[in-house]
Amino acid sequence: MPSAPPPSQDDPSTPPIRRRPGGRTSRIRTQVLDAVRAELGERGYDELTLDAVAARAGVHRATVYRRWRDVGGLLADLLDATGDDDWQPQDTGSLRGDLAALNHENLAALTARPSIAAALIAASFRSEEAARGLRRLWEDRYARCEVIVSRAVHRGELPPHTDARRLLIAATAPLYHQLLLLRTPPAAELPDHAATDAVIAATAGAFVTSPPADDD
Amino acid sequence: MPSAPPPSQDDPSTPPIRRRPGGRTSRIRTQVLDAVRAELGERGYDELTLDAVAARAGVHRATVYRRWRDVGGLLADLLDATGDDDWQPQDTGSLRGDLAALNHENLAALTARPSIAAALIAASFRSEEAARGLRRLWEDRYARCEVIVSRAVHRGELPPHTDARRLLIAATAPLYHQLLLLRTPPAAELPDHAATDAVIAATAGAFVTSPPADDD
Repeated sequence: MPSAPPPSQDDPSTPPIRRRPGGRTSRIRTQVLDAVRAELGERGYDELTLDAVAARAGVHRATVYRRWRDVGGLLADLLDATGDDDWQPQDTGSLRGDLAALNHENLAALTARPSIAAALIAASFRSEEAARGLRRLWEDRYARCEVIVSRAVHRGELPPHTDARRLLIAATAPLYHQLLLLRTPPAAELPDHAATDAVIAATAGAFVTSPPADDD
Repeated sequence: MPSAPPPSQDDPSTPPIRRRPGGRTSRIRTQVLDAVRAELGERGYDELTLDAVAARAGVHRATVYRRWRDVGGLLADLLDATGDDDWQPQDTGSLRGDLAALNHENLAALTARPSIAAALIAASFRSEEAARGLRRLWEDRYARCEVIVSRAVHRGELPPHTDARRLLIAATAPLYHQLLLLRTPPAAELPDHAATDAVIAATAGAFVTSPPADDD
């Protein structure tokens, strides 16, 4: 995935977390976090319990309680693990292509059935620990995406003082807004439209770090 | 308020719902919905119960159970009542001014303590009835905001085939994205930045109903 939450779990070709070399401890963590994802995706936050996670993971309840303590602990660790990958935004050769690819990844993650991304965002409205973990994950994802803007500046597509974060949020926010808040059906053209609109804005001088004195 | 959820409750100068002429039934509804807002703002969805609402409203429990049935029924009615006002977007004389005013209203509603807007959005992740009610409310608010775009077209600020909804979402989504999803501190310049960026995009030809063939 993208600037958004959990990428890899929705894509079976990449492991959900970087598997550290061997070790029973790391194996148990992988089993438990895989079980959290499955429970969260299938049943949602309300039904998430340490007992159900332990049973699905095939791990002793006592181990899960000792190491993760409660549902907040499980979600925080899941979010940390999700950020612990080597995801990078695609390099398509153009700003518009890069932003559209990012939006398509986000759309796929948010409309997967079940969507772990959507479930984690929903959980962040319930659990302070999930909210903190998700904030760290978003921050990391947007930071990784800044290369999209620096590449475009380097290619001469954008003025040098473009505010990368502001451009990235303009390009990605409409999709989250429509799918998660407005709950409109995901229109096929939404990822490309939002990317195109952000590129038009950026090349016309929006998102500059000191905005033009434009007081009309 | 704005394109967003509940406006008036955050502003004591306007009544939270249009008070229909007299009647015990409408008086009870007003008392109950005021109590729902207060409970939701102070305690959140998890603590919202019909008993607490009845006690705070000073209305018989049996009446509340008979008329609203459950928490979902209360939230759905609150959202309907919230939409039943005469809110209109401000007419400042310019597209940028109108969009900035809208964003400032949204920022105020989302950062009020307590914020009923934020509480209702959080509830929509929990309750299907709240989600449906909120979707109707957003739809109504964005429809009312389309006059911002038609006024700008009429003034010659925008090309005639501008997609009003797409422009409005581009102008308003970044603020919701940052406050509710990324949970970044609300920067003072955010409402104006998002409005300015959307105006730059729109005047440069973004948001047109048939987008330019731009396949770079």
